[in-house]
Order: sequence, then structure tokens, then C-alpha cells
Amino acid sequence: MNAQPLRIGIAGLNGRVGRLLAQEVPAAGAVLAGGTTRDGRRVDGIDCPVHADIADLAAQCDVVIDFTHVSTVAAHARALATAGTAWVLGTTGLSGAEQQAVDQAATRIAVVQAANFSPGVTLVTRLARQMAAVLPGSEYDAEILEMHHRQKVDAPSGTALAMGRAVADGRGIRLEDHIESGRDGHTGPRADGAIGFAALRGGQIVGEHSVIFTSSHEQISLTHRSFDRRVYATGAVRAAHWLRGHKAGLYDMEDVLGLPRD
Amino acid sequence: MNAQPLRIGIAGLNGRVGRLLAQEVPAAGAVLAGGTTRDGRRVDGIDCPVHADIADLAAQCDVVIDFTHVSTVAAHARALATAGTAWVLGTTGLSGAEQQAVDQAATRIAVVQAANFSPGVTLVTRLARQMAAVLPGSEYDAEILEMHHRQKVDAPSGTALAMGRAVADGRGIRLEDHIESGRDGHTGPRADGAIGFAALRGGQIVGEHSVIFTSSHEQISLTHRSFDRRVYATGAVRAAHWLRGHKAGLYDMEDVLGLPRD
Amino acid sequence: MNAQPLRIGIAGLNGRVGRLLAQEVPAAGAVLAGGTTRDGRRVDGIDCPVHADIADLAAQCDVVIDFTHVSTVAAHARALATAGTAWVLGTTGLSGAEQQAVDQAATRIAVVQAANFSPGVTLVTRLARQMAAVLPGSEYDAEILEMHHRQKVDAPSGTALAMGRAVADGRGIRLEDHIESGRDGHTGPRADGAIGFAALRGGQIVGEHSVIFTSSHEQISLTHRSFDRRVYATGAVRAAHWLRGHKAGLYDMEDVLGLPRD
Amino acid sequence: MNAQPLRIGIAGLNGRVGRLLAQEVPAAGAVLAGGTTRDGRRVDGIDCPVHADIADLAAQCDVVIDFTHVSTVAAHARALATAGTAWVLGTTGLSGAEQQAVDQAATRIAVVQAANFSPGVTLVTRLARQMAAVLPGSEYDAEILEMHHRQKVDAPSGTALAMGRAVADGRGIRLEDHIESGRDGHTGPRADGAIGFAALRGGQIVGEHSVIFTSSHEQISLTHRSFDRRVYATGAVRAAHWLRGHKAGLYDMEDVLGLPRD
Repeated sequence: MNAQPLRIGIAGLNGRVGRLLAQEVPAAGAVLAGGTTRDGRRVDGIDCPVHADIADLAAQCDVVIDFTHVSTVAAHARALATAGTAWVLGTTGLSGAEQQAVDQAATRIAVVQAANFSPGVTLVTRLARQMAAVLPGSEYDAEILEMHHRQKVDAPSGTALAMGRAVADGRGIRLEDHIESGRDGHTGPRADGAIGFAALRGGQIVGEHSVIFTSSHEQISLTHRSFDRRVYATGAVRAAHWLRGHKAGLYDMEDVLGLPRD
Repeated sequence: MNAQPLRIGIAGLNGRVGRLLAQEVPAAGAVLAGGTTRDGRRVDGIDCPVHADIADLAAQCDVVIDFTHVSTVAAHARALATAGTAWVLGTTGLSGAEQQAVDQAATRIAVVQAANFSPGVTLVTRLARQMAAVLPGSEYDAEILEMHHRQKVDAPSGTALAMGRAVADGRGIRLEDHIESGRDGHTGPRADGAIGFAALRGGQIVGEHSVIFTSSHEQISLTHRSFDRRVYATGAVRAAHWLRGHKAGLYDMEDVLGLPRD
Repeated sequence: MNAQPLRIGIAGLNGRVGRLLAQEVPAAGAVLAGGTTRDGRRVDGIDCPVHADIADLAAQCDVVIDFTHVSTVAAHARALATAGTAWVLGTTGLSGAEQQAVDQAATRIAVVQAANFSPGVTLVTRLARQMAAVLPGSEYDAEILEMHHRQKVDAPSGTALAMGRAVADGRGIRLEDHIESGRDGHTGPRADGAIGFAALRGGQIVGEHSVIFTSSHEQISLTHRSFDRRVYATGAVRAAHWLRGHKAGLYDMEDVLGLPRD
Repeated sequence: MNAQPLRIGIAGLNGRVGRLLAQEVPAAGAVLAGGTTRDGRRVDGIDCPVHADIADLAAQCDVVIDFTHVSTVAAHARALATAGTAWVLGTTGLSGAEQQAVDQAATRIAVVQAANFSPGVTLVTRLARQMAAVLPGSEYDAEILEMHHRQKVDAPSGTALAMGRAVADGRGIRLEDHIESGRDGHTGPRADGAIGFAALRGGQIVGEHSVIFTSSHEQISLTHRSFDRRVYATGAVRAAHWLRGHKAGLYDMEDVLGLPRD
């Protein structure tokens, strides 16, 4: 146990995730040490120092949580590495050069980088891979079912595809070669070893995903339901706490959850 | 309570359903009064008189249960009407003329005709219509999910479509105008009032169907799972018992279950 | 279609349901015509006239929605009957005298009175009764499963018991004589015709209820999930709209949903 | 790939599991090399040599699968160790001395010993432990739900308790100190870190188990459904195949599935 509460800074304090983080940081027993906004102006209803320059924030905290824009990544990497401040990075869509800037920073500071900070989604994706490694595709048919709100414009969801990729990894095959998505009309029998996808839409469902393995004799299914987008904020704060006491390096949510590397 | 056990005859005694019926009839407290096979030969392991001519069977029983072939329908209609023997008819795919023969017989004998004798499927389809009538499509998104064994070659299943038609009926719309089946790729947002379908395949699942209504605030779902094809046989025997004491007319499984006509 | 938007008043404007109603009324295309608080003071963040006296509110609106306290019921009944203003009444725990006051008012005004305004719960309870009437207890085992947040101090939930009572009604038996709740240890085999209950607790689940009928061959289950307490407010506003054009009388949510009386 | 098909012997050939094994062995590409019955008499409908003495069977095969009675364990251990024949042992309820006999045999032959040979149950139990290790009990409420046929006389099921023990192991606590089973009446709020159990009964359900972790923001659930008791036989045959090429030692189904020891 560390006597001092962790000082967390929030890059992008007035973004949607930034505002949730501002609530979750104190709720998790950490100190909201400050934030950044583009113009350095304070954010209504959030009581902490605000800076325009990430370097000024970095100087005030142990960890910066960063769900901003890909255009900020390289500058944030340099500033945090210089300050020696740990980094929880949720920004996605990085180019090769931007990823290199992150890797470079990770030689000097501890970084958790992830596309999805939900502990549940991280865990379910990992378990899907393990299950697939043990339940042979010749016997166990793998299907992935997802449900999202009615506004969603594509199918399957990115998380569903990530779970399908985890199943393919576990079986040592490529998802692209075995995907069966959106069955409709005369489909023919299920292909041997296929990974199937089906999508439901309705209401304001935040996200539900199931990975289902069915043999002639049994069925094993693993389901994740998100009740609340807040889960991404709590996961990021958990990552921030985990970073304390970890040396420089690039980590992901599997590390934060303590899942053994394999 | 009727003192005499019901005497049931089985047309097509050596068919798949016929054999199941031969077990279910005595299990339900009725008497297996006989059966027909094409050549009038006895069936291994089934101990009852066998006839080649439906008229000979009709003379021996109160009700004939008939899951044979569409080509037999007209002849059976005449023979049973002549004998005054009630008829449980599960044969499907009737032409207009064949249906007329059934309607004609039903002026003289009591007939239960249905495409699916499972009490659960009958009930769920009926309830789906009621639910749709009460849960407006502008607020409650309707989705139908089905899962079947890996050999199934088409999607959605016939029963899933029947449930979708029930939802459309309840809303006073046509399924054809509102169907969204097999979402995949860029789908755009869910259409207002759509009836969605998704299909899972795996193992030897006999059949699972769900009708799901989701609003922003709540979700109501109705699910049917078949464990065993035997359910069709038990439903037909239930229909046979129900026929005793009903006057001439054409009935369906909703009548047998006692669902009020609307 | 009525050209004039419905004018709705809210008794108990600063209660938890009152505040939700204040958001739902305009969202549903009605006019928030005013509210009452004990002292007649305005409520922060809600922009409408506030009265201390229900009679003053009644004069300003077509319908009053009332989730207040049982002690107000008799006075509200008199005031609304005098004003000729319709009444949506969600207050529970009425004594015989208080219920008489409501019945008396309903001879002059249209009243919807219900313990639960969720359309989904109303519908599911009704359907549970219908299902039980059709699926005999000798063949179909009925179980009721509910899940609620970790703070809940009793089991089964009131809504679960209401669903169990609906099943018993459908079968023409008394729930008290057939309840099996909280199986643990040596239970012996399931009693014939029993109605079983099981309770899960966890997280902040608002409420999930399933009624499950299982025979040897099939299973039919009906599930309700509440995502949001707001559903009670939207149901009450739906009841308010429904009241317009209905003559004096006492109605319930089954009437509002258009479920046929039986 | 081994050119020679595996020769499998079945101890207790006329037991319920023995008869299933006799079907599964050839279905899995192995040779049914023989079996034992108490009196050495052949079993109707199973075409293979039958012995009264396990030593005679052991001499004819690579592996013996043994679901017999605890009273046979010590003798079987000696006979198989002497013959150098591998052993799949599903007999349960061993005394300390009997277990010692097994351990002793395992110094000379390869043995897979397990209480449940279902790959799915083995996997789900293992994953439940992993999940519990990652999802802290202070945040994620763990519940175990099971459903079985109406004849079952106790609750929770042995498999449900094994899953609960796996959750407790993952959290480093004792199940006995945290169990909440069969909630009914005034229960008070859920205890912090509790492991809850609920039991449903109905129809002829072979067995369904769910482990459910629910936080304020998300829910992860893992469900196993057995369609068919045959799954125990196929798991045992899988274990037999796995044993070929493994050196002397005591193994369990986690080893057979290739789950890493931890």
C-alpha cells in the first residue's frame, strides 16, 4: 500500500471520456491533479487546475490519462517521457510514426496502451482465445453474437471482430478464411471450422457480445454486457493505479489485469 | 372425464413421426388402435394392427393422426369423412384443391390442421403477435434470433419467419416491407419499425427462437427451445384428445391450446 | 389525432419520479402545465408553475400524474373529481377507505391506477398468466428467476411474486400452496405443479425477471429487463395520453396497453 | 499421427457409461479391444471380447477406461500397473488408501483421473478461477446459477459448488466463508465478496451452469449447457487418446485439454 494517493492528470478534460474520468478519479481514491484543454480554460463543474500545455500538466502528476486525438500523440509522447510521467493512452488510429513515438517514450516511462479499457472485454477476448485453443473447430462450432443500439451503422462490431480474431488465433487460423457473417437466404450447411457472426440491433444497448461454442453434446458461451460507457473510464483509472511501481515499458490491459503473457 | 380411452390410429406408421407417435400414444393414456403403411406390413417393434387402406384404419379408431405425404390428403379426407373419424393432419404443402378436400371433410368431421404441433411454438407465435400489438414499433425494436444445427441450409428458419409475420400482423404491417435479415458490413442505422432477423448455427441444436423487443428503457424477450423432435408427436396426441367432443369443423393448434380467437 | 397537446400536471414535482416525469412529459409531446410541492416552492431546474394546493394544479391541466404519498390520496381524489381532471395514480399501499375514495372519484373522472407503470412488466405478467393457462403444470415446470442490485434486502422481488401469482391464476391454483423458493441443501425432487423462485444479486441491476416453463421436450421463457427507472415515468405519461377521450372509470395499465379484459 | 488405431478396453462394459463408451470408442476411430463385466458374460448388442478379470483385459489394450465402483480401484491399480496399460479413471469417492493405490500406479503408468470428463465443464471451471483472479470481489459480484431436471434432490449441484470453489480459489478465499445459497425472505443486502448460488429445476434438463460476474458497469457470464450425458463418454475417449505418448504420471482433464498448469 502506498501512503500517498496517486496524482492523475487528464488530457482532454472536456471530452466525453475526460468528463467521466474527472468523476472516476476521486471515486477511485486518487487525486485529480489537473487537466488539459485546447485553450487552457477551466471546465464547468470540474474543480482542478487546467493547462493548455501537456508539459505543465505532466509536471504536476504521476500519471496522465489520455483519450484525445491522434494528432497529439507524438507531442504527448515527448513531453511525458521528458517529465518522467507515466501514461495511460486510449487514443486509437495511430500511424506507424505515431506508434514509434509511443514505443520510444516507453523506453523511458511506463505506458499502458489499449484500444478498449473495459476489464470485461479484455478478459472475454483473452478467454475466447483460450477456449478456441482447447475446443477443436472440427467438433465445436464457434459463433459470435452481438447486440448494439439502433444507431449503429455497421456489423459486426469492432469488438465482435476482435473476439473472432481471438478465436482464430486460438485455433491457429486466419479469421478472413473462416468468417461467416450475416447469414440470409440459401446459405448451405455451416462450413467446417467456420467462425460465425450475427448482429442484433435495438434500443440504446451499449454493447453485448457472446462467444458461443456448440458441439453435438454441449455448449459453452461467454457473454459480456456493458451497462454504461463509464466502464472505459474506470478501466483507465485502474490502469493508472497499476502503473505506479512498474518500470518503463509498453503494457496493455492484459498486463493490468494480470493475465499471464503467453 | 371420459371412461373409455381414446382409440388413435396412425397414418404412416413407419415414418419418423409415425414411430414417435407409436410411443407417445400409449404414454398419453390412449390406445394405439392401428396404423397404415403403404403395403400393409407390420412395423418392427410396434405392436398394433396395420392396414394398407386408410378406410380400414378409420373404422377402428376415434381419431387418425396423419403426418404422411401431400399426395394422400384427398383420399384420406374422403375416407375419414365417410367413416366419421376425426383427423389430426400435419401434412404440409397442400395445393388449393387438396386444401378444399380438407375443408370439405371438415364439414362432416372435426379436423385439427397445423404446420407445427409444438405447443410452445404455437404459443410463442401467438404471444409475439400480442406483444407487437402492444409495444409500438416506433419505441420497441423487434428482433428475431434463431439457432439451429450446423446442417441447416437456409436462414432465417421457417419458424423464425412465422414469428416475424406474427409481429408484423400485430403491428398491422407487412413483414416484406420491414424485414432486415443478416446484417453485415455497412448497414446504416436500424430502420424505424424494422423487424430484424439473425441466425446462429452450431452442433445439433434442434431449434431455438427468440423474439426480442427493446426500447430505450426496457427489453422483453420470449424464447422457445426445442430439446427433442418428440414434441411434435406429443402435440399431435394432445390435439387428438382435444378433438373428442368437438363437433365437425376445421381447427388449429391455437384452438387446441384454448387460445381465444381474435 | 388531437390538435391540442395534452396538458399534464405533476403532483409531487420534486420527488424522484416527479423529476423524471418533468423530463418525460415534454419529450412525449405533452405540455408540462404545472406541479405541486408541499410548500408550493419552485423546483430547481424545472420550469413550470408550482402550486401547494392540488386544486390549483387541477384547474390548469387535463391530467394529473400522481406518485406522492398515501396520505394525500383522499384529498387528491376529491379535488380532481371536483375539477373534472383525469388522474394517473401510482401511489401504493392504500387502505380500504383510501381505495374507496379513488373508486368514488372514478365515477366522475377517468383514473388509471397501477402498482407498476412499466409497459413491459404489465405485459409480461399478463402473458405469464396466459402461458400458464395453456401449459399444464403436470407437464410444464414453471420457474421464476429474478436478478437485482446488490443492495436489495429481500427475495423474491415483489414483481417476481406478482408473476408467480399470475402463473398460479392461469392454473387456477393458489401461489401459497405451490411456492418453492430459495432451494438449498436436500430439497427432494421438485413437487408436481410447483412454482419455483430463484434470486440473483449483483452490481446495480435495475431488475430482470424471467418466467420459464420447461417440459421434457421444450422450454418457453419470457424475460423482462429494465435498463432504467425512467420506464415508470414513460409508462405514466403513456397512461395520461390514453386517458384523453376515455370516459369516467377506473382503469389499469392492462387497459392502457389495450390488453383485452378476460 | 500414429498409424495404429488405439486399442481401448472398457471396465464395467454393461454399466450406463460403459454402454455409451462402447459406441463412442469406434466413433472416435479407436478399436474397442474388449471389456469387463462382473461375471465375464457378453453384453447384448456390444460386439467385443469380455473378461471377468481386469488383467485379461489389460493384456489386450493400450488404455483401459474405468467408470466402475470404488471397491475395484485398488485391484485395477495393481493390474494395470503390472500390465503397463494406461488408465482413464472416472470412479469417484476414493478413500485415502484407494487414492494411494492410484498414485502408486501412476509411478509406472500414465493415468488420467477426473471427477467430470466433460471438456466444457473442465474448461468452464478453470476459466471461472481465472476470471475471479482478475475481477476483484469488491467490484464484481459473483453468482452461480444452475438448472437441472425435476428429479434432482439437492441444490446447488456438485458442479455448481466446484465452480464456486474455483471462484473462491481465484480470489484466495474459502467458499465456506462466502457462500450465499438459496436466497429467500429477508436476506439483507448482498455481503461484500459473497459467492451466490441459485437453483432452477424443470423438465429433463441434463445440466446448465452459469458463473456471472456483475459490477456497476458491466457483466461477464460464462455458461455451460450439457445436451447429452454422452459428453462424459466422449471426454473419456479423448483422455484415452491423449494418454498415448505420455509417460507415467497422474494427470487430470485440464492436462488433457492442454490448459497450462499454474
